[in-house]
Parts: sequence; C-alpha cells; structure tokens
Amino acid sequence: MDELTVGLIGLGTVGTGVARLLTEHRDRLERRAGRPIRWKWAAVRDPHKPREIRLDGVRIVQDAGAIVNDPEVDVVIEAMGGTEDALRYTLAALDAGKDVVTANKALIAEHGREVFERARETDRAVAFEGSVGGGIPIVQSLGIALAANQVLAIAAILNGTCNFILTRMTAEGSPYEDALKQAQKLGYAEADPTLDVDGTDTAHKIAILAQLAFEADVRLGEIPRQGIDRLQAADIKYAAELGYAVKLLALAKYSPAGLEMRVAPTLVRRGTPLAEVRGPYNAVRVVGDAVGDTLFYGRGAGSMPTASAVVGDLLQVATGRAAMVSRSRPLWRSTAPAIPIVSPRDVRSRYYLRFTIADRPGVLGRLAQVLGDRGISIASVIQHEPGEDAPGPSPVPLVIMTHLAVQADLHAALDVIDRLEVVHAPSVWLGVEE
Amino acid sequence: MDELTVGLIGLGTVGTGVARLLTEHRDRLERRAGRPIRWKWAAVRDPHKPREIRLDGVRIVQDAGAIVNDPEVDVVIEAMGGTEDALRYTLAALDAGKDVVTANKALIAEHGREVFERARETDRAVAFEGSVGGGIPIVQSLGIALAANQVLAIAAILNGTCNFILTRMTAEGSPYEDALKQAQKLGYAEADPTLDVDGTDTAHKIAILAQLAFEADVRLGEIPRQGIDRLQAADIKYAAELGYAVKLLALAKYSPAGLEMRVAPTLVRRGTPLAEVRGPYNAVRVVGDAVGDTLFYGRGAGSMPTASAVVGDLLQVATGRAAMVSRSRPLWRSTAPAIPIVSPRDVRSRYYLRFTIADRPGVLGRLAQVLGDRGISIASVIQHEPGEDAPGPSPVPLVIMTHLAVQADLHAALDVIDRLEVVHAPSVWLGVEE
Repeated sequence: MDELTVGLIGLGTVGTGVARLLTEHRDRLERRAGRPIRWKWAAVRDPHKPREIRLDGVRIVQDAGAIVNDPEVDVVIEAMGGTEDALRYTLAALDAGKDVVTANKALIAEHGREVFERARETDRAVAFEGSVGGGIPIVQSLGIALAANQVLAIAAILNGTCNFILTRMTAEGSPYEDALKQAQKLGYAEADPTLDVDGTDTAHKIAILAQLAFEADVRLGEIPRQGIDRLQAADIKYAAELGYAVKLLALAKYSPAGLEMRVAPTLVRRGTPLAEVRGPYNAVRVVGDAVGDTLFYGRGAGSMPTASAVVGDLLQVATGRAAMVSRSRPLWRSTAPAIPIVSPRDVRSRYYLRFTIADRPGVLGRLAQVLGDRGISIASVIQHEPGEDAPGPSPVPLVIMTHLAVQADLHAALDVIDRLEVVHAPSVWLGVEE
Repeated sequence: MDELTVGLIGLGTVGTGVARLLTEHRDRLERRAGRPIRWKWAAVRDPHKPREIRLDGVRIVQDAGAIVNDPEVDVVIEAMGGTEDALRYTLAALDAGKDVVTANKALIAEHGREVFERARETDRAVAFEGSVGGGIPIVQSLGIALAANQVLAIAAILNGTCNFILTRMTAEGSPYEDALKQAQKLGYAEADPTLDVDGTDTAHKIAILAQLAFEADVRLGEIPRQGIDRLQAADIKYAAELGYAVKLLALAKYSPAGLEMRVAPTLVRRGTPLAEVRGPYNAVRVVGDAVGDTLFYGRGAGSMPTASAVVGDLLQVATGRAAMVSRSRPLWRSTAPAIPIVSPRDVRSRYYLRFTIADRPGVLGRLAQVLGDRGISIASVIQHEPGEDAPGPSPVPLVIMTHLAVQADLHAALDVIDRLEVVHAPSVWLGVEE
C-alpha cells in the first residue's frame, strides 16, 4: 500500500510522545499499519527550542497552515490543544481531504457537531481515542465493542490531577492546598490547575462519553459541575470512617426521564473497583444491559499514554478502519433524537452531610426532624465526643449519611437547617455512589 | 444497505443470550448495524426442548449443515462449543463465503492457525471477542486500540469459576471442596468443573491473548499449567497474613529471551487492582511500553455478558469493520516469526513456600541454609507458636517468602529439603506477582 504521510501540529506533552513513537518505533508501526509511514511535518510554536527527540528529515514550521495545505499530507495529528486554532486547522484539514487524529477533549466536547458534520461532508475520519482517559481505550470500547448494549450508567474518574490530589489528601489527611503543591512538584498538576480542579476537564470528557454511549449532544453548561478545590480534609476523613473514598466522579445515567449527569466529589464505597483507583490513574465504569458491570483502568494523561491512543488511532487511519468507523457509526448527528438532561433537583441519591453545630443536647434531634419533614431518612450518624482540650462549648461536627433522597428536598431541608441558631456554619453535602 | 442474514449454531448459555439480544433488541442492533438483521436459522441439539425465548420466524434445525449451506446466510454465529464439530462448521461456513462469529476459546486457541488461514484464503472475517473475558472488550483493545505499543506483560484472571471459588475460600477460610459446591449451587461452576479448575480454560484464553499481543502461536502443552483444585485453605490464609491474595493468574511476559507463560495460583499483593477482583469477575492487566499499566474488568462468562461480545462482533461484521480488521491485522500467520517460550526452569520470580516441619530448634536454620546454598534469600517468615492444644510434638507449618529466585534453583532446593527427616510433608510453593 502507499506511504501514509503525516503532519503533526504541536510538540508539547502529547506531541512529543507521538514524535517519540513515530521515530523510535517506526518499524513496528509500519508493520501494523501495513504500509510505510512518513512523518513529514511538525508545526511548533518555537522552532529553535532544543528538544529531546530527533527530528531528522521532519520539516519544522511555525505555521500549521503549511501542513493542512500540503497535498502530500494524508493525515493531520492535532496536538496543539485549545479550541480556536485547533478547530480552524481541523476543519481546514478535513476540507483539504485529510483525516484528523486528535486528543483534544475541549475541541471534541465543545465543537463535536461542527467537526463531525464536516467530516461527513468531506467523507474523512476524525479519530479521538486520546481525548478521554489517555491511553485507556474507552472511546473504542464504548463506541464499538459494547455496541450491542444499551448503556445504563457511566461512572468515571477522568482527571488524574484530581485523583492524585484526593489520594494524597486521603493518605496523609493533608489539606487541599498542600496536596496540590505536591502534585505540582511531581508534574501531576499544571502551574495553573484551574481547568483540572474545577471539574471542567472532567465535564468535557463525560460529555464525549455521553455522546458515544447515548448519542447525547450535551453542552458543558448543562452538566452540574463541582470541583475538588473547596473540598475539606475533614470530609475525606469522615467519609473514610463511614467506609467510603471521596473521588471526583463524572456520572452519566440513563433513565426513561432522560440523562442524569454530573461532575462532583462523590463518596464511593471502599472495596469497589472505582474506590480503589489511586494516584494519577483514571478509570471508567460502564454498566450495560447485556454486559453488566465493566471497568477500564489506566493512566489518563501524560505524554506516552496519550501518545499510545493517538498513534493507535493513526494506525486505524492507516488501515482504513477509521474511515469505516466514521461512516458506519455517525457521531454528533444533527438528526439524533435529543435526550433531555434530568434537572439536578430531580436526582435521587444518597447524601453525605456535615453540619457544624452547637454542642448541646437535642440538636441532632432538631436536624433529624427537619430532614424527616422533607422525607429524608438517616442511614448513619457520626458524632464524636469533643476532645478533652476542646476550648469550652465550641461548635462540633455532626456527620449524617442519608438514605435515598431527592436533591430538591435536600436543598429545602438544608436551607432551613442553615438558618437555625444552633448551626454555626453552612452545611456541607456530597453525593454517594454505591 | 442489504439485509444481513444470520444463522446461529447452538442455543446453550451463549446462544440463548445472543438469541435474546437478536429478538428483544433488534431495533437498536439494526440502528447500529446500519442495515436490517434477519435471524433465519438456529441449529439446536433438541428442537423440541421448551425455551424461554421467542423464536418466531426462526427456522429450527438439528443439522447445522443446513445453515452453512444456505446461500442466503451471510454470517454464522458458532455457539455450539467443543472443537471438532465447531471447527468443521466454521471451515465450511468460510468455504461457503460466510463470515463467522464465535466465542469458542478452545476452537481459536487450538485451531487458530487453520481457521485464520482459511479465512484469509476465502477473504472472510472470523470475529472472536467473546472467546476471552466474556463481555470485556479485551480482544479488540489488545489487538487494535493498543497496537502502538509493544506489550510487555499480560497478567489476567480469566476464569470466573476459579475466581469465585478463591474468593469464597478467602472470605470464609473454607476448603476447596466446599467452595466448589457453593459455586455449583449458584451456577458459577459446571457439574463437571474439570476444565475450569485445572487451568485448561485459562490456558486457552491466555494463548489467544498471546497471539494478539505477541503474534505467538502457543500450543496448550507449552504453557505450564496448574489449577486451583489442589490449593489448600492454609495457603490462602498465610498469603493473607503476608498481605497477598491468591488468584488463578495467567501470565504472558515479554523478554528478549522469549515469552514467559504460565497459569497457576499466584500470590498478588493486596491493594493492587488484580488482587481486588472478587467473585465471578475477570480482569486483564496489560502493560504496554507506551500506555503503561492498564486493566480491563468485567464478567468473564455468562449468557448476556458473552452475548454482548458476540453481538458486538456481529455488528462489526454488519458494518464491514470485521472484514477490514481481518485483512489489516492478520492473525495466526504461518509466516510470523516464531517466539520461543522461556522454560519454566529459567523463570525468575518471588516464591511463597510452606513447609511442614518438626517443631524443634534449628529447623528453620537448616532450611534457610539449603535455600541459601542455591542463592535463594528469604524476604519474610511466618512461624506461629503451636496452639496450646497441639498434641505434643506434632509437625508445624513454616511459611517463607523469598526474594527473586530462579525456578530451577528453587526446585533443586526443595528436592533436598523434602528429603530432610525434619520435614514431614512435601513442601508447597506458589509464585508471587507484584
């Protein structure tokens, strides 16, 4: 078969990993592609920056336009990140008759419809395995291998930075700020970690999985989203006492009323596979009506794991499989039936609650009364005796685990409770996933 | 696109699951196939047996020949099990120009070369996702999604019956026979469980994974194989004291010297994902040079999980993807370079050892001496004081965990140790996987 000519846009973390595979393991890639692979171009921001990888014979340019306009290029690997330029070059590459491989979750989550409409118009493939879960082959598994199923639920840990921070907070009882600093020192968190820790990155990824599983075209703003940046060490400690780990969980659940979606720190029962995912790892639990419970686990980010997915996609482009997948499983179709997103107020879940109350008889009873009035019943309670060195009648924590309750009822109850004079600080609540 | 006409051979556990998806969820399958699916034939052993599923419009026959000879049939689902007839009908279907979907691990593991040579000659697809790990999409993930990697190691729990039995033995301290009876009562073990508990089923499956990962055409007899049927509750208990779970592990490890393979009850450190796989679940750990550590988890058997994989394959046949995979990733090629299997004698591992010794001073020293003479050093020891009600100077157990050692040296040492008069029973050894 003919040579496959590749242009790579971006030589950052992901691009460098891809470059390494293309140069150091070319033999094995060509064997599996069944054809020669020629890496012709790399577009970089700074052509003079020294790099660890050998780029012999690769033309280095600053203008990615040179790549998408080169008629010799068969496939463009978009590894630049961001959305504006990435979208522009992706569409230009498709218009020029090239296939596109990308690991850009923001591009796919925010502009999926535009990108895939264009791919259909131009009969080109857009492959994006690396956009969710790094090297974990969840896009292919969910989109193709599990296609006989109606997916019932996805519950996933999709951000390695957050999972690393939560793992440290759990193991060491350290506050969020300290664990974040550790993550930054070890290279697991960016200097500006906002998009990771506020849940945006996770929301992008669950939006992509929701498209694959449910053909749902979910806007970022439709996903209730809570990060880990305001999570307190105390709640991780009490959760552990109750037998739960706290994870930044992305949820997408199918019900006749629509799709329940959210991103939030969530209590997950210890001993279940998701609860045991530690450090920078990711995991995706998929429940299907035929397959039952499955879990996919691995490194969700990083240079080589993501490059594994990107180059895996490149091989599928090389063999023609990507084109066939694009044609036979159309994604982000404008004709797909719209699936309503269930209002968070209507979601039923168990809840973890922490109150800061006056250490006085009868307070637990009053809180239980308010909860009970809204149909919320208590499954378990933690209230420790105040420490010996507690400075007089200072406020004490009261932790309650509820049975299943409707979120609107919970909010109504918390509104009342937070106004009681025996309650000294706004109450804290977290969802529970069994 | 044209209607896809399907013939199903076998309506046992897997066949019934497939039938259920084909009848109860036809709409969604056709939507994902992009074409109508017509289930025309079912070949069964007893056409008069009452069945739970509706077979309206499906022609029931005893002779599967009618299916493979029907020119209307596009794809044959082989769900009969066994190897002799399954091979005959598979080859006949390919010769007649039909694609084949199968979940038959014995067929693929033992006759892979013949089946795939024939598929190439006839330019037909053979899809076999259900043959390993039930509904877990490991065949596709390993064969396609991770293709950018050199796989370094596979460590897998591939038999749900064994994992269920081991989970019960661990949780309840019960002997093998009791746990087996429980498994049989709950439907997790067959009346004759031999092929499950002696490791044959697991060996078939790891042989298939070794082909996908390493292009290794491994004969069953080349895989050192030990079942769980002679495993003692005591060893599970001592392993737990040392911080390990005992799992029936299938291993395939890549090294410059060749492929290390084995199936054996193995100690796996608690807290690692494989150790936490409980009950009838399966899990496959794949380590790749780019992707790093990954794990795929789910139900490894059962009617609907396996049907999920089989019908997933059917959809890939329907869309033409299976044909493309068959052409672009040739399996069981006679021209693939032969990979030597490393002799078990040369394998380096840590080992768990249990001796039954005279309760007398100096015995531990003598054993340590024999081990040390063969270069085997001790990492940890368990020797409890004999119970108060121990009947005089009865033999006591001594458990030793070694550092890395070569298996040939271990056997040499155990040969000497088992002849010492202070040793009262043959020593027990198990490998350790970190």
